[in-house]
Amino acid sequence: MSPEEFKRVGYALIDWIAEYRARLEQLPVMAQVQPGEIKALFDPAPPQRPQGFEGIQEELEALLPGLTHWQSPNFFAWFPSNAPLSSVLADLVATGLGQTGITWQASPALSEVEEAMMDWLRQMLGLPEGFQGVIQDTASTAALVALLTARERASGYAQNRGGLQAEEQPLTVYVSDQAHSSVPKAALLAGFGQDNLRLIETDDRFAMRLDALAGAIERDRAQGRKPCAVVAAVGTTATTAIDPVRDLAELCREQGLWLHVDAAMAGSAMLLPECRSLWEGVEWADSISVNPHKWLGMAMDLSAYFVREPQHLIRAMSTNPSYLASGVEARNYKDWGIPLGRRFRALKIWFALKDQGVEGLQARLRRDLENARWLEAQVRATPGWKVLAPVPLQTVCVRFEPPGLSGEALDQHTLDWVNRVNRSGQAFITPAMLRGRWMARVSIGAEPTERHHVEALWQLMRQAAEPIEAAPR
Amino acid sequence: MSPEEFKRVGYALIDWIAEYRARLEQLPVMAQVQPGEIKALFDPAPPQRPQGFEGIQEELEALLPGLTHWQSPNFFAWFPSNAPLSSVLADLVATGLGQTGITWQASPALSEVEEAMMDWLRQMLGLPEGFQGVIQDTASTAALVALLTARERASGYAQNRGGLQAEEQPLTVYVSDQAHSSVPKAALLAGFGQDNLRLIETDDRFAMRLDALAGAIERDRAQGRKPCAVVAAVGTTATTAIDPVRDLAELCREQGLWLHVDAAMAGSAMLLPECRSLWEGVEWADSISVNPHKWLGMAMDLSAYFVREPQHLIRAMSTNPSYLASGVEARNYKDWGIPLGRRFRALKIWFALKDQGVEGLQARLRRDLENARWLEAQVRATPGWKVLAPVPLQTVCVRFEPPGLSGEALDQHTLDWVNRVNRSGQAFITPAMLRGRWMARVSIGAEPTERHHVEALWQLMRQAAEPIEAAPR
Ligand SMILES: Cc1ncc(COP(=O)(O)O)c(C=O)c1O
Ligand SMILES: Cc1ncc(COP(=O)(O)O)c(C=O)c1O
Repeated sequence: MSPEEFKRVGYALIDWIAEYRARLEQLPVMAQVQPGEIKALFDPAPPQRPQGFEGIQEELEALLPGLTHWQSPNFFAWFPSNAPLSSVLADLVATGLGQTGITWQASPALSEVEEAMMDWLRQMLGLPEGFQGVIQDTASTAALVALLTARERASGYAQNRGGLQAEEQPLTVYVSDQAHSSVPKAALLAGFGQDNLRLIETDDRFAMRLDALAGAIERDRAQGRKPCAVVAAVGTTATTAIDPVRDLAELCREQGLWLHVDAAMAGSAMLLPECRSLWEGVEWADSISVNPHKWLGMAMDLSAYFVREPQHLIRAMSTNPSYLASGVEARNYKDWGIPLGRRFRALKIWFALKDQGVEGLQARLRRDLENARWLEAQVRATPGWKVLAPVPLQTVCVRFEPPGLSGEALDQHTLDWVNRVNRSGQAFITPAMLRGRWMARVSIGAEPTERHHVEALWQLMRQAAEPIEAAPR
Repeated sequence: MSPEEFKRVGYALIDWIAEYRARLEQLPVMAQVQPGEIKALFDPAPPQRPQGFEGIQEELEALLPGLTHWQSPNFFAWFPSNAPLSSVLADLVATGLGQTGITWQASPALSEVEEAMMDWLRQMLGLPEGFQGVIQDTASTAALVALLTARERASGYAQNRGGLQAEEQPLTVYVSDQAHSSVPKAALLAGFGQDNLRLIETDDRFAMRLDALAGAIERDRAQGRKPCAVVAAVGTTATTAIDPVRDLAELCREQGLWLHVDAAMAGSAMLLPECRSLWEGVEWADSISVNPHKWLGMAMDLSAYFVREPQHLIRAMSTNPSYLASGVEARNYKDWGIPLGRRFRALKIWFALKDQGVEGLQARLRRDLENARWLEAQVRATPGWKVLAPVPLQTVCVRFEPPGLSGEALDQHTLDWVNRVNRSGQAFITPAMLRGRWMARVSIGAEPTERHHVEALWQLMRQAAEPIEAAPR
């Protein structure tokens, strides 16, 4: 591709993206295609000859029905995954520079901008100075990295001997029964095994019960096992429940356990001093993950992983082949995670702050928190509707419970009306299970979502859920 | 950021990238900064207020001395990591669309374009139809995924019981002593432990010795261990040595071992039918990794991972929480690897083929192979210079051995002249150890590298290495 073609197509794609973002409100939020429809747009075999980029806009338009529009103001599903225009520009520059960070020498700028930006983030989150940060692709990977490090620390670095296979006492891991699926997955991948993974009971606010945890640890010790790590959720996926970090941290220090705090979603809220009491005691965590690629608005994939004592991480992850030796004393992020090579992802943090400043990001987070409180108040004030969990952040868990409906019939009704909302294309919310019953999760926080979008959603939900059984309003 | 500002800054950055690529030849290839210099360009604290993008070009210029220019025609270090302009556009669109693939429903287009493009790649590599592909971030992660899957298959899915901790017979893993550092790292992370990892001796072409492997497997069985997996290197990092895939595959089938083929670098060559004999027998591998983000020119991070029987992978990696249930029968890539969320990386494959077609990519690969053969011939024909390993691909391993110099003195001379080359800024090559002695690796294959760049490099190497001791030419 010539520089001229690159410029011509590049400008056109910039225009197309701006236009795509502008018409998001008109597009059905949830993709409406059937499996296979998008794949069928492509020839079964790759093109032998260059095709050029002439019709590229039309080809991208043909993909649109296959997109679920995460950047739509009417996206209330899962958790937000904001990719603001500042991130679009940052990724443009990142790939434009074509850097591959394998060692410091391979791209000092990539390494050091990441170091600088992770320290900015640390300050923004209110974490103490000792914490050091590294970008992982996702919180899933961060949880695996945390449990691998915990495993090695607890076993006196058994990887240098017989690995997990030679240990006398099985190591055990403790997570809340509300933990994100990536956390048990990480424990299984790290080799602990289901038999050594404890899903700890939660209380009526869906937070991990300290007494249940302490009891489980005691029982395991009595049975000859070796408790190794606790994963605390600050903001669970179903309800954004908050595990009691200070108490867990104290117990972990007493017992010599690794504490990983999974604040994938809720971590962004820590930009707001008024929210920081939610993770009080976090300074005693061994590792923390926060996903700027969710609510904060630094596009996928950008998960921030902080450690209190990097030497454990580095000892578990480092390699030193001759072809990567450089003789320079500098931070080599290859020793801070699983992959060797890395993209220049830190540019997204820099560009987001250039664009918004800390205050801009804070204002947007506060807007979303207020929208959630508004919705919560509406739901509470409306007959038949229930708020099912505390709303510490921006996610509201609700159910419409018409008189006479319960059990599986209620479940069916919930799934039906949520489906009607999602099929309408006007908004997208997520059904999820809570204590064995279906509910609707409304997760507010897409970048363009304003109050009036939440108001429209609330109308839509009522229309979808009520007409069948509810009294006329 | 308003759409207008996005367009204005976007156009400017497109121009800046085009201009950056155009002047790469003039920039010193290896970054010349000292540790800390780039970090010092940033304020210690994040900006509270928006700053805007007015001076962005100047700010990016200030980073340039901190970049090692992987896209330079004079980059001959490590392995190429090409990020052609088509990938720059693909990443622009990917972040512009702001998709997050967590399930099929979360972005059918992201899933299905990945499925379609991985099938194109499969065909391009000459792999049989049964193989199914998924994008992993890097070959390092792919190796970990392969060994985790092998571990679970060999243990009858011990993750559902006591994990690695409860197995009677330790599982063992076999890799060449020339394997990339990421492979032993993956074995240790997967929990096998150093005591159960065998680095198998290589022959005088640096390929794994089948007899040594068979012997090691036999010894382990005799001692009550359970051989689990072999990782074959097709293209080692030091010399691009090729392990005997067909023989290894036969042994693995006989013995019931998982065979992972790490063709991170050399896999790209399989676009050329004349190279495919190098990995003859690959259709019997259980998993294969090929890095399009290296030589092929689909920018980081894009490592292609193919499996012959996806059910093992899926069984080892899947999770099914309610909030990710969708009731749709479709491929969910979250169950094909470690992270839950994924970027729209497949666009880079599509755009590369639009831009070049299979034939364009093939022509570029052949150009590089010929350049390597030319350099090899020069080195062989020049007194004092040695080619240290076969050159099946595009990497030439050389040493200048002046009369009278050997051992550590020779090592020092090698490191000195390689350093002089790299410090000159005119080219960048990698020193590496081979059988305990330093050598210089010349890895050809940056996208803009033409014959005259290789000629200039060869002059530069001779000037840097010879003058001190060599006779006048
Ligand atoms: C609490 C929590 N932890 C972890 C994750 C996984 O995040 P990622 O997609 O970055 O792996 C999620 C995703 O929603 C989450 O809600
Ligand atoms: C043979 C081989 N395998 C694996 C890797 C690791 O690749 P990645 O950086 O994608 O993890 C490399 C990198 O050079 C390699 O040469």
